[in-house]
Order: sequence, then C-alpha cells, then structure tokens
Amino acid sequence: MERPHNQYIRPLLTDLYQITMCYAYWKNGHHMDHAVFDAFFRKCPFKGEYTVFAGLSEVIEFLENFRFNQEEVNYIRTLIPHAESEFFDWLLSIDASQLKVYAIPEGTLVFPRINLLRIEGPLAIAQLCETTMLVLCNYASLITTNAARFRKAAGKDKVMLEFGLRRAQGPDGAMTASKYSYLGGFDSTSNALAGMIYGIPVSGTHAHSYIASYVDYSDFRDRLIDGQDILQLALDYRRESGFTTNDGELTAFASYAKAFPNAFLALVDTYDTLGSGIPNFLCVALALYKIGHKPVGIRLDSGDLAYLSIQARAMFKKTSEKFNVPFEDLKIVASNDINETVIHSLNDQKHQIDVFGVGTNLVTCQSQPALGMVYKLVEIREHPRIKLSNEKDKITIPCKKNAFRLFGESGEAICDVLMMSDEAEPQVGTRMLVRHPFDERKRMFVVPSKVEKLHKLIWDGRLVEKIPSLSEGRERLQMQIEAMRNDITRAINPTPYKISLSSNLYDYLQDLWNREVPIQEFR
Amino acid sequence: MERPHNQYIRPLLTDLYQITMCYAYWKNGHHMDHAVFDAFFRKCPFKGEYTVFAGLSEVIEFLENFRFNQEEVNYIRTLIPHAESEFFDWLLSIDASQLKVYAIPEGTLVFPRINLLRIEGPLAIAQLCETTMLVLCNYASLITTNAARFRKAAGKDKVMLEFGLRRAQGPDGAMTASKYSYLGGFDSTSNALAGMIYGIPVSGTHAHSYIASYVDYSDFRDRLIDGQDILQLALDYRRESGFTTNDGELTAFASYAKAFPNAFLALVDTYDTLGSGIPNFLCVALALYKIGHKPVGIRLDSGDLAYLSIQARAMFKKTSEKFNVPFEDLKIVASNDINETVIHSLNDQKHQIDVFGVGTNLVTCQSQPALGMVYKLVEIREHPRIKLSNEKDKITIPCKKNAFRLFGESGEAICDVLMMSDEAEPQVGTRMLVRHPFDERKRMFVVPSKVEKLHKLIWDGRLVEKIPSLSEGRERLQMQIEAMRNDITRAINPTPYKISLSSNLYDYLQDLWNREVPIQEFR
Repeated sequence: MERPHNQYIRPLLTDLYQITMCYAYWKNGHHMDHAVFDAFFRKCPFKGEYTVFAGLSEVIEFLENFRFNQEEVNYIRTLIPHAESEFFDWLLSIDASQLKVYAIPEGTLVFPRINLLRIEGPLAIAQLCETTMLVLCNYASLITTNAARFRKAAGKDKVMLEFGLRRAQGPDGAMTASKYSYLGGFDSTSNALAGMIYGIPVSGTHAHSYIASYVDYSDFRDRLIDGQDILQLALDYRRESGFTTNDGELTAFASYAKAFPNAFLALVDTYDTLGSGIPNFLCVALALYKIGHKPVGIRLDSGDLAYLSIQARAMFKKTSEKFNVPFEDLKIVASNDINETVIHSLNDQKHQIDVFGVGTNLVTCQSQPALGMVYKLVEIREHPRIKLSNEKDKITIPCKKNAFRLFGESGEAICDVLMMSDEAEPQVGTRMLVRHPFDERKRMFVVPSKVEKLHKLIWDGRLVEKIPSLSEGRERLQMQIEAMRNDITRAINPTPYKISLSSNLYDYLQDLWNREVPIQEFR
Repeated sequence: MERPHNQYIRPLLTDLYQITMCYAYWKNGHHMDHAVFDAFFRKCPFKGEYTVFAGLSEVIEFLENFRFNQEEVNYIRTLIPHAESEFFDWLLSIDASQLKVYAIPEGTLVFPRINLLRIEGPLAIAQLCETTMLVLCNYASLITTNAARFRKAAGKDKVMLEFGLRRAQGPDGAMTASKYSYLGGFDSTSNALAGMIYGIPVSGTHAHSYIASYVDYSDFRDRLIDGQDILQLALDYRRESGFTTNDGELTAFASYAKAFPNAFLALVDTYDTLGSGIPNFLCVALALYKIGHKPVGIRLDSGDLAYLSIQARAMFKKTSEKFNVPFEDLKIVASNDINETVIHSLNDQKHQIDVFGVGTNLVTCQSQPALGMVYKLVEIREHPRIKLSNEKDKITIPCKKNAFRLFGESGEAICDVLMMSDEAEPQVGTRMLVRHPFDERKRMFVVPSKVEKLHKLIWDGRLVEKIPSLSEGRERLQMQIEAMRNDITRAINPTPYKISLSSNLYDYLQDLWNREVPIQEFR
C-alpha cells in the first residue's frame, strides 16, 4: 500500500515566527534573495558519539506538497492583520520549485556540525522550510539512533520487537517510531497500522486481559484440536507433573492454543510466573505437542528478567528430558521496561532471552528525548553568514559547504571534513591539512585512501534522486555500523569521531568571527 | 475551523496482539461476552502527586470512527492467514454501537489507581479499544500535567508560550503537544497549524536567521516608517549612547520594526547579548518610539537567563531615565532550555522575565517521557477479575467500580474512594470506613461534606454527554489546582493524595487474591 499523505505535513505546520519573518523579508524586498541554509546538530544523543540520519522521505513529501491553500492564508491574515494584502497573494503563489536540497542519505552515520541538509533558494521560501524540516528529521533521526543502539546492545542474533504504540506522542508519534525503529535495526513492530502503511513485519501474542477473561474450565467449551481434547491432555500433564496452578490461566492458554495451534506463545506472569505461568504453559505445550503442533514459547512481562529467563530455560530443559520433547529451544520473549543499560546488564548475567520487546524506552528515547537539530542561514546574497552567541557551542560554521568522509588504509573512516563549496575536493592519495573547528591547536594531515562525498542533490525544484527504501536504508545502516571503529560506536565512554574543517574554511571562520563580534568594554 | 479527522485514529492503530486475542475470543465463542475494562495509571509523573486527565476528545473521535475497512481487513488476513474466514466478516461488521464508556472529565486532577475510563461491552470489541485509547490518553494526560506544573512554577502573572514543534515526535506529536499545553495552562503556541485547527492563540517573533540575513546598512533600502528614517534615527541614538554594536544586527532590527512597528520584539543574542543585542534593540526602540510606536521587548535565547534578564531590566530603566521614555516595563521573553527546575531556580534569583517560551522540555516531558496508563479487564460475564503478578505495583483492583471524591468541612478534598458499582453511594454527613488498597493497617473514617461522583457516562453506543471545550477544560483545571491542598501540588516532596477502597471492595480484593494465587512450595 502507498503511504497516505500525512495531513499535518504542510507548510502551515511551522512556527508563526517563520511567517512573520517572511513578511519582514517581503516588506523589505529581500524575500527572493538567494540564501543557503544548513540543518545540523551539535551533540550526539544518549552520551554516544554517533547519530543516524533519518526523516528524508517525509522531507520529500513536505516539499512535494509545499503550497498554502486559501483557508490557511486567510488564517495567517488573522494573525498578522496589519500586513499588506499583496503579501498574502505572494504566499498563495509559492511552492518548492525554486529550492535545491542536498542531503546525506538516510541510514548514514552522521556526526556533530556536519550539515545533514543544505537548502538553497529564495530566502523567504527556504526560511519557511525550517521548522517543518526539523520536526520531520529530529525525532526520526533520534529514534533510529536509539533503535540502532538497542540492536547493538542485544547483538545480531536476537530478535527485536517494537512495542511502543501506547507510549508514543499520539498516533503519528507512534507511526514514526515504528517506521524508524525498523530503519534502526528492529525486526518488527506490534503496530498493525504501521505494518500496513510502511510494509514493516508485525508481530505479537496476547495480553493479560486474555488470561483474566477465563475464570475456570467451563469457559472453554469446544476443546478439540485435531480431534483431541487439549484441556484434558494439559490437565493430565499437570497431574503428572504435580503442579498446583491457576485454573483460569491454564484454560486461557489451552483456548489460545486452539486458536493458534502453530503460534502458541503464552504470557506467563498474570498470577505467578514460576509458580503458575510457566508450569501452565508447559502443560499446554506438552498437550499441543502430543497433538502434533510445536509450541513457540513464553513472554515474561515483569520481575527479574535475567533470573526468570534462566529459570524458564532450566524448566524447558527439564521438561525436554522428562517427556522427551524438543522444548529446550522454545523462545523466551522479555518485555518489561527494557532499555539499553538493562540489555547490557542482562548480557552480564547470561540471560536466556531470545526476543526483546521494547516499548516505552525505545519510543520516548527516555535518556534523551530530543535531538537538537537546528537550521541556520550560512550564506545570503553570496555573503557567508555566522551565528556567534555567547555560547561557543551555539556558533555556526559559515559558507555554502560540502562535506566529505575520508577513509584510511585500513578501510576505516578517519574523519569528516567540511569545505567551502568552491574548494577543490579531497583527492585519494593527496595529503591535506584539516583543522578542529574551534581549537587552533588541533590539526592533522590526512592522506585519504578513499573519499566519500556525503551530500547528494535530491531536490532541484522536484525530486531528482531515487530515495532508498526503508529496507535499503536499514541495510546501509547495519553496514555502516559494522564498518565504523568500535571505540566510536561502543556504549560506554566512546571516543569522539573527528570532525574537521579545511584549512581555508577554518581561516575564513576565524576572520569572520573577528569582523562580526564587537569587543565588549568593561570599566 | 472544524478539526479534520486524524487519519491515524482508527481501530487498526493497535497492537497486533489485540487482534490475535480477538480471534481467540471469537474462535472460542467468547467475543460477545459482557466485559468491563478500566483504564488507569499506577504512579503520577514528574515525582509529583497529581496528574491531569486529558485526551477524551480524541477518544470520542476514535469511537465515532470505529470501523475496519475492507483494505484493513484484507491486510489483517495476511497477518493471521490460518484464521477462519468468518472472523474477517465479523471484523468488518463491528463498530462502537454496543459500547458504554464512563469517563472522568478532561482537565480533572486524577490520582493513581482511580479508573479514568470504564469501558463496558462485548469482550472482543472492548478489547480492541485498548491500545488506541491508551495512545490517545497517555501522552495527552502527560503533557497536560507537565504544562500545569510549568504554569504553577512560573506563577499566574507570567505569560507561557509553547515552542516545542521542532522537538516533538513528528507532526502529530507536535499538534497534540500544542493542544494539551494550552489545556494545561499555557497561553499560546508557536505552531500556526495547531492555532488554526484547535483555535489556540499563536505567537512568535523572529529567529537568528533573520538577523544573519542582514550584512550591513545597504541591505535596508526603504527605511521610512511614517515618513521618518528608522535606521538613521537608530544610528543617531547609537552615537549618542556610545555603543559599539554589530551593524547587520542593528539593520535587521530596524527592518523588522518597519514590518511590525507595533509588535517589535527583538531576539538579542545573535552576536553578543549585552554588548550588541540589547544596545541595538534600545537604539531601534528609541527610534521607533520617537516615530510614534511603542516597542514590545526582547527575547533572550542563550546565556544565564537570570543575570541577563536583570541586566536587561537595568538597561531598560537607565534608558527610560536618560531619554524619558516608558521603557522600564518592556517585555523580556526567555527561551533557552527552560524546565520546571530552571523556573524555580530563576524565581530564587529574582529574574526579570515576563514571558517564558518553552519547547523541548515541555513537549518531550524530559524528566518522565511516558505516563504508564494501562487498560485492564476487571469483570467478565459478571465475574470480577484481577491481575496479580509478582510485583505488588502491578496488581489491578477487580470489579466494575465507581469512584467518588470526598470533600471535608474546609472544602478541600480528603480522598478518592473506589466502590463496587452496586454499593450505596457515599452520603454527605454519613460516616464511612475507607481502606488503603494494599496496606491493611491503613484505614480511616470519613464524614464527607461534599461528594463528587467522578465518572460520567459519555458514550452509550453514541456520544451522550457534551464534551467540554478546550477552554472549558483549561479553566476547570486551574480551578482544581487552586482548590487542591498545596502540599499535594507542590513541586518538591509533595504529600500523596489518599486513594482508598470501600470496606466491601477491600474485603473482596483480599478474598479474590487468596482464591486466585497458588501458594508456591519450596523444598
């Protein structure tokens, strides 16, 4: 299915001040001046040293639908009632046909200060893209990065399920979370609508309500699977095993197995995980196996997941031996308050979990719920521009810039370098001097063995580059993470990746700084 | 404008396991059994002791549009390919006409364990509401609570602006944030689309790009406001004051004043707040005032907001005195990384801020980005149900229940009490025994002076109760916060509000517990 156009992705989804600024540009005759803007961030999230860029397909959707309608313009008129009438005619006339957008491909590892998007075109129109592009890329990049970190923590052989729908910022927050968790390396989502719209695998079992809906045996009437009474068989196994368990739970499991004889996965913590849930699961699993169907496994949703998963595996093993059934490798799904730190701790405890279901901590990006991507003017009428501010962190790097990733002989990336767009590109085998943006003592020579130009022109009044599919981006990302030095991608105290400026750009930045900042006088 | 239907608010916006459970109910003939579900949360967010309930208008929207279409059912069929064909016919046939929904009004202060929604109807249909209702109420309630806390921290006389669009979880996250920040007590949003759709006031000034777009005086061509040269006048004031400031910034301010002579509010931290931004603002403000327009003020977006606001106020005062102009009360807007703790700290430092612009920390609810509202089966076929689990916190309170708020002689609320639906309601002037849900030693007598029944039947196959408007909910909330004891609503170490059970319900809970939980045996 084609994704329906998101009704909120439109140019009015912006901060009012973008529109008031446009009016001031227009009023002063600057609205069509040629401008260049950069979108970038200043710090990687989650105390990490890498970020994954994402959100590009929505940016394209935004550009393709960039038109104010009459109702919107009428509304804007009520907000700035003293503005001249011709301005509103102009607003009605604009679209994205005069814009150029350069972008780093989705699923690329990116680093602070490197411009992820470069937007060129008439000042007022490019200005109007600011807020919408940021809302489309900020969270998409953040959750993709978070998902990639969870995946890295759990390891390649684990199955990762996204369960965050109920904890996201409303429906669209949830849809975005599902889409970009998949990009980041998750295997599936529980969100059926996201599955339909984005073509992501969907998975899930049942919840506590299902168990609670069975009071006793009498609630399960037609008990036959392939002609055999699943409940009676399960009760026989319970007697044989000497378990004392909750009857409603046993009945619920048996009835669920009847509905899904080849996909029987039971939530085992409704009453008591070790005392009732797992024993009941095993009784029904044995019964089902006897009838001729292989059970799938259990889900743990509370308690000490390391301990319970180890105990569960031991019980599976014991059952395998006692009844001569292949239950040792039944799946153990765990899903209660899992975050990256918890996964590392579970690893240390040699957990027996096969599948992680992650909701809240994935979609809310709890340890850092926002990526601070910003959108800054870097050139106007061919004059490079800078934003200084009192905080060094908030300084922007001026000029229309290209970005390159330089690789060494080992095949690993050495650094990214920002260069003015009219500088000659870095050459394989040619030594170049690169400099830290703000620390004059930090500089180095690089002789690249490979040079990757990071930006592609994706929009030139219309879409001019095929945007990779979600699956392609997902593969690209896993390859990038594998190729990157592990000291940069590791979870604890990672090494910062080197971001540098060409010598020319560095000198230009220093010069502009000296020119633009008045020296304060103290008495 | 009528809010357009949110395209994602539909029954397929759910966890797949809700659908697989439905199939299992259907397969076992239980799908039409009468069920009662409660939606509630277990812990107030932000280390607080109150929460604001919100999200009801979207719940109604969901119920009104509760119908699967053919495309969705075809998609579901691909997810559970072995399910019987009649199930899909049944899915196509269902709607919300057999459901009853009882709800606490939006904007009410609510507390842990009290059911915010009670949903009654056919088991499978009520089950299918779980995830969607949770995604609609969880974040709405969380951000409303967060906004209310920010408002309380800043005080009633401050203006609060929501600026979070670019940091939300995509477009709908942002729209929800704007809507419910207003419910929580904010005055306006920067999000123009939210303004149009929800009728919320919108406000904003300009951003750094506007300042940076002016290189020097020559970029400002038509400098006349009411026939006078605003830039020349500003330059004259600058000479007279002896300021050395950035020329591009001064020019940008003057040009902005030309576009908005009666709404001139300048962002002053592009180059140097005290050394350039505020002096430039004052020069343009003096010029504008001379021409006959009152300037509005400044926005601080970086640096030490307490210090800078105090310095700015002092500069306003000095300018007022020197030039005999009414500049002492010009507005100071502050907007950099503000959160509840920062506001309390600014208060301690006697800041001079009039208006707070809050983005990231408001919309992401950074200190707790999810409210854990859950949806549990409490009665099936007239049998009360319980979910126990190993964690006491995860125990649900069984039975179809009503909730009451009991007020004392002082007019303040004493406690909320949950009662079985067939118990006699609490009576004014009549003593009743109420008990802590889990601690047998905690019990008390209450003689209420006023009794408020918390739930209203809002949906009985169709909407049967007028849902208050956003503004009505906003007023309701502010009245509720004022009426609540301050030790419960204060920011630091608040006192928990008392949540209790009627004596009957308490006994029933103990009894069910003993019946349902097997006693584990250790050897």
